[in-house]
Amino acid sequence: MSLPAEFSLIARHFRPLAGPGALNLEDDAAVLAPPPGRELVIAADAMVAGVHFLPDDPAETIGRKLLRTNLSDLAAMGATPLGYLMTTAFPRGTADAWVAAFAAGLLLDQAEFGLTVLGGDTVSTPGPLTLSLTILGHCAPGRALRRNGGRPGDDVWVSGSIGDGALGLRVLQGSLPADAEGWLAGRYRLPRPRVALGQGLVGLASACMDVSDGLVQDLGHLSRASGCAATLHAGLVPLSPAAAAHPALLPLLLGGGDDYELLFTAPPAAAAAIRAAGVAAGVAVTRIGGLAAGAPGVTVLDTQGNEMSLASAGWSHV
Amino acid sequence: MSLPAEFSLIARHFRPLAGPGALNLEDDAAVLAPPPGRELVIAADAMVAGVHFLPDDPAETIGRKLLRTNLSDLAAMGATPLGYLMTTAFPRGTADAWVAAFAAGLLLDQAEFGLTVLGGDTVSTPGPLTLSLTILGHCAPGRALRRNGGRPGDDVWVSGSIGDGALGLRVLQGSLPADAEGWLAGRYRLPRPRVALGQGLVGLASACMDVSDGLVQDLGHLSRASGCAATLHAGLVPLSPAAAAHPALLPLLLGGGDDYELLFTAPPAAAAAIRAAGVAAGVAVTRIGGLAAGAPGVTVLDTQGNEMSLASAGWSHV
Repeated sequence: MSLPAEFSLIARHFRPLAGPGALNLEDDAAVLAPPPGRELVIAADAMVAGVHFLPDDPAETIGRKLLRTNLSDLAAMGATPLGYLMTTAFPRGTADAWVAAFAAGLLLDQAEFGLTVLGGDTVSTPGPLTLSLTILGHCAPGRALRRNGGRPGDDVWVSGSIGDGALGLRVLQGSLPADAEGWLAGRYRLPRPRVALGQGLVGLASACMDVSDGLVQDLGHLSRASGCAATLHAGLVPLSPAAAAHPALLPLLLGGGDDYELLFTAPPAAAAAIRAAGVAAGVAVTRIGGLAAGAPGVTVLDTQGNEMSLASAGWSHV
Repeated sequence: MSLPAEFSLIARHFRPLAGPGALNLEDDAAVLAPPPGRELVIAADAMVAGVHFLPDDPAETIGRKLLRTNLSDLAAMGATPLGYLMTTAFPRGTADAWVAAFAAGLLLDQAEFGLTVLGGDTVSTPGPLTLSLTILGHCAPGRALRRNGGRPGDDVWVSGSIGDGALGLRVLQGSLPADAEGWLAGRYRLPRPRVALGQGLVGLASACMDVSDGLVQDLGHLSRASGCAATLHAGLVPLSPAAAAHPALLPLLLGGGDDYELLFTAPPAAAAAIRAAGVAAGVAVTRIGGLAAGAPGVTVLDTQGNEMSLASAGWSHV
C-alpha cells in the first residue's frame, strides 16, 4: 500500500516520530502492550484540505491540528494519550521541505502531549491533501467519560472559550478583520485539547464530550444521549476578548465548529470540585446551563431569559 | 470533524457494523479491553480511488479490499483480528445506495474474519474517494512474527499464488484478456489475507511479512531486515493456472503488487511443520528460495540456475 518513494520519505521524516512498539516502522504492524489493568480508548478522525483546514495553512500546523482534534476526543473520554497511527495522502509533487515541516510540527506536539507514532501509511493522491489519524489512549476500566450520563438537575459546563475557531476561519478567509494578537487564527489552526482537564473530570462529570460541531449542536447530542432537556444561557458562554469584540456574531460563536473544548455535565454538588479540577489543569471552566427532565433538545436563552432562535443550527468547517 | 449529513449516514450504514466497545458509535471514542495477557498488534493503511483501486470497482469490494489488506498485515504478524476503525472521505454527491453497498461488503468480511467496527469518521472531499483503516489484533506477548528474524540457511516460503493481483489489474484495465472464471480480476479486487496461516506460523517461521509491493521487492525488505542475502528460484514461485497462462509476463508476476500472500522464512527442519500449518489453514505453502550469509539483496534464478535481471524492480498499483 505504498509508493516507491514512500520508503525514503518515511525514513527521513516519520521514523524520528516513532516510539516504543512501532518496531522502527519496519514491520507490517506495531506491537503494543497496554498499561497493566487499563482499558484502551481509541478514536479516528480524517481531515481534507479545503474542507477541514485551509490549503495554505502552514505545514507545521496541519498535522498538529489533526493530532489535537484526536487528543480532544481522548480528553472527552477522560483518557491518557498513548500513541497514534497516521495515514497521509499527499498530492503528487508535494515538496520534501513541506513534509519535513509537517513532521516537525508533529514532533512538537508529541513532546507536549506525551505520545509517539505507532505506525501509518503514506500514499499519493491526485486530489487534495487528505489525512487520517487513529489515536490510542487508556483509562481505568469502566471509568471512561460518556455522553449518556447526564441527569435532570445537572449543571452544564464548558471549558476554555467558545467561538474562537469559527471566527479564526473567517479571519483567515478574509471576511473578518484579524485581532491584533492573531489569537483567532491561532485557535482555528491549533486547537487546545483539554487532556489534563478531561482526566481530572473522571469521577466528577456525569457526561462529557468535546465541542467540534458547534456548542448548540453538540449540547443537542449530549441531551439526546442522556435523555434530558438542556438549557443554555447564551450570556454565560465564555468568550475570549477577541471573540467578545464581535457581539453581533453570537449565533456564529454558538453554532460554529472547531472549538475543541470540553462540554460536560455534573450534579450541582460537584461544582467546587469541578472548579478545582479546572484550576489544577490550568483551564477555565464555566457553568453555562443545566439539564432537566423533558424531551431532548436545547433551549438557548438570552440575557433577559428570552428564548433565542438561532438562524443556523448547522455549520461548516470552511 | 463531521458533515451535517454524517449523522444519518453513520446511523443507517455504519452503526450496524459496530461491535462491543464501539459504544454504538455515539461517543467520542471507543473503549476496548484487550484480551487478558495478550499484546495488541495494530496497523494502518490508506487507499485512494484511481491509485489503489479502480474508480469503477464495485462498491461492495472497495471497503473489503482495504480491510483485507489490513488483515494481511495482521496475518504477517501472526495476530488474531480484534476490530478496526475506518475513515472515509466520500466525493460530494456519493449516492446513498453506493454507501449502502460499500457497508454491506464490509459486513460480509466482518463475519468471515471475526471482527467489528470500533469507530471512525466520515467526511466529504472534492477529490477522489479516499479511505483509511486502522486494524487491531492481538498476539501472545513477544510472539509476534517479525521481518528481522531470518537467518542464513533458512528456507524462503510463500503462501498461495503470486502475480494474480498484478494481472487482474491489467485485465480490468483492458490490457490483458480476462480468464474465463474471472479469477485474476477477483484476486485484484478481493485479496485473500492468510490470517489462519499467519497464526499457525507463530513459533515456526523465523521471519514473516506480507507481499504487497511485489515479491522481489518485499523479499528485499525481508533480506535487509534480517541481514542476509536471499535467493529466489523463479521456477518454484507458485502460479495460479490463470497466471501460468502468461509465461512471458513472469517479471510482472514477480514484481507486481497486490498479492497479499505471506512471505516467510524458516529453518529447513521446520519444513514438515510448515506444510502441516498450510494444510491446517487450507492454504498452499511453497518453498521458493533461501537465505545465506552475505550482503542483503535478492538474486533471482531462472530454471537453468542463471541469474535473471528483472527490468523493473518497481511497480505501481494502478
